[in-house]
Amino acid sequence: MDLVQGILAGDRLALARTLTQVENGTAEGKSALSLLFPHTGKAHLVGVTGASGTGKSSLVNQLARYYRMPAGESTRRVAIVAVDPTSPFTGGAILGDRIRMRDLAGDPGVFIRSMATRGSLGGIASATSAVVQVLDAAGYDLILIETVGAGQSEVDIARLAHTTLVVEAPGLGDDIQAIKAGILEIADVLVVNKADLPGVENTERALRGSLNLAHPVPHRFIHHGKLEIIPEQSAVSAASEPLWVPPILRTVALDGTGIPKLADAIADHRAHLETTGGWEQRVRWRLQTELDQLLQTTLVEGFRSRLPAGAYEQAVQDMLERRLSPFQAVEKLVDGAGGLITEHT
Amino acid sequence: MDLVQGILAGDRLALARTLTQVENGTAEGKSALSLLFPHTGKAHLVGVTGASGTGKSSLVNQLARYYRMPAGESTRRVAIVAVDPTSPFTGGAILGDRIRMRDLAGDPGVFIRSMATRGSLGGIASATSAVVQVLDAAGYDLILIETVGAGQSEVDIARLAHTTLVVEAPGLGDDIQAIKAGILEIADVLVVNKADLPGVENTERALRGSLNLAHPVPHRFIHHGKLEIIPEQSAVSAASEPLWVPPILRTVALDGTGIPKLADAIADHRAHLETTGGWEQRVRWRLQTELDQLLQTTLVEGFRSRLPAGAYEQAVQDMLERRLSPFQAVEKLVDGAGGLITEHT
Repeated sequence: MDLVQGILAGDRLALARTLTQVENGTAEGKSALSLLFPHTGKAHLVGVTGASGTGKSSLVNQLARYYRMPAGESTRRVAIVAVDPTSPFTGGAILGDRIRMRDLAGDPGVFIRSMATRGSLGGIASATSAVVQVLDAAGYDLILIETVGAGQSEVDIARLAHTTLVVEAPGLGDDIQAIKAGILEIADVLVVNKADLPGVENTERALRGSLNLAHPVPHRFIHHGKLEIIPEQSAVSAASEPLWVPPILRTVALDGTGIPKLADAIADHRAHLETTGGWEQRVRWRLQTELDQLLQTTLVEGFRSRLPAGAYEQAVQDMLERRLSPFQAVEKLVDGAGGLITEHT
Repeated sequence: MDLVQGILAGDRLALARTLTQVENGTAEGKSALSLLFPHTGKAHLVGVTGASGTGKSSLVNQLARYYRMPAGESTRRVAIVAVDPTSPFTGGAILGDRIRMRDLAGDPGVFIRSMATRGSLGGIASATSAVVQVLDAAGYDLILIETVGAGQSEVDIARLAHTTLVVEAPGLGDDIQAIKAGILEIADVLVVNKADLPGVENTERALRGSLNLAHPVPHRFIHHGKLEIIPEQSAVSAASEPLWVPPILRTVALDGTGIPKLADAIADHRAHLETTGGWEQRVRWRLQTELDQLLQTTLVEGFRSRLPAGAYEQAVQDMLERRLSPFQAVEKLVDGAGGLITEHT
């Protein structure tokens, strides 16, 4: 397949085209994903999340720039995937941000992709996962996955990563702190950006307090996914990963202060994961989530194709008129499709 | 069934017990849901969402108190469902809030349920939906569904409601505004609470600006659900619901200022929905979402029961070693289960 060969050979146009196919879920995109899959598994996936106003995008740009600093063979290729599932309005803002970083955009060792796609959470998470796989196969050594906001959607997307950075900044108010509680559990590295602003000590103290409050054991491997197809197998014990205490680092993304130390912490976390088996565990968790979602889609589509015309709408109507409860409606549909029997096509 | 009869007769203990069964997804809970379903469909479901710090809980309490004011036969029974999916820490805070409202808690016409359950988004949304159904069958005329935060999870839960209030307050900072963009689309009524604080004009102006930016057509009926089982049927055209322009109201929950006008706006929205067919459309959307989720669970569990022992784990291992792509792993599992053929039990 031409596009796939192109990607493996480093053709940026082939890469961009394939990403579009993959994002849109076309047959060509799916086929490319399967062909590229054997070439994945090498990149270090780094999630960067936190509320807007923390200077997260600038931080990501500075990190990318740092990784691209001339260092001979050790210079790494970097991809940035910016995901914003919350709003149709901020797409432009992200783009503007990127356009300002002309030095990055002109670097052939950097690839930037904005995903301002709207839609279901699951959809965005799986589209992001697919995009990251393609970039991984394309040979990017570090893939920075930036998510806007601090809600559950960002948590889910951050779970794609080997290493997750949670970014905070002074002066964002207590309400943000409250939201943070859930997100702290997924943090591998905590960053207080805009550390030149007043109040940085308070922010750091608050983060440290929340960290101590949170369970000391990372929660990542408790399977929160909607579909727990074989719970005994999917729930990898949290206790099996030795303790990593998330460091709290100060940065000023605008002038680059603290970026080298942040890069060191990211490298330390990778080394920790590799030593402890955590790397494989995280990859396993991610692949399993993907398998579950794909299985689910396959089963539902198979069932749907066997449903008599109008049966689904009739079931909804029966529920609406309170003739059938949701459970009874499912039974009726399953009977209408000839039981759960569905031909494998 | 005793519990069900008790609920229909107004027994609060039977109600509380059934809610626990339903929340935990027990067989007894499922059976109660089916038996109660024919008695649902009468309550007005009102979602109340917004960031923490907006005084949302106090507002909900005041609304409940207002609806309970002695007015002869028109006095309505009110239930409050407080959902907090973001954090394990705030459960106590919600409870504290409730305990302070002793006048409400002692009123037999008010029922308060906190759901501090953690877990997957889908799980919380469907548990909330089930709890609301039980309260609806129990004869509560108004069910106030309060969600903490402003992320996608809250949006999904708010979609359960006929009428959605989005609560804002002065002085929460620009970062909150950015998060709001996505949530504004689901607002039927915008509330600026703490309207006695300085900056209320700015907050109101910002909301009005965002409202104008947002599409004038409500987006609720565009099916964002993960499972679009029959897209042509599930995507109810947004244009088919005549325009409702969300009013912006000022309140001071602490002293009750603006609460009567807010209650009027909620009643106006209900009347609007009833006149335009929007009421049935929202109910249909909700029931359909529930049907889709239940179908999905049924299909996955049926498939899982037919899978040979160890097959799933082997597929994950094959993916991990890049021998199978996710698509190939699904094919292998489906073959291993004898195609998509699954007995209907």
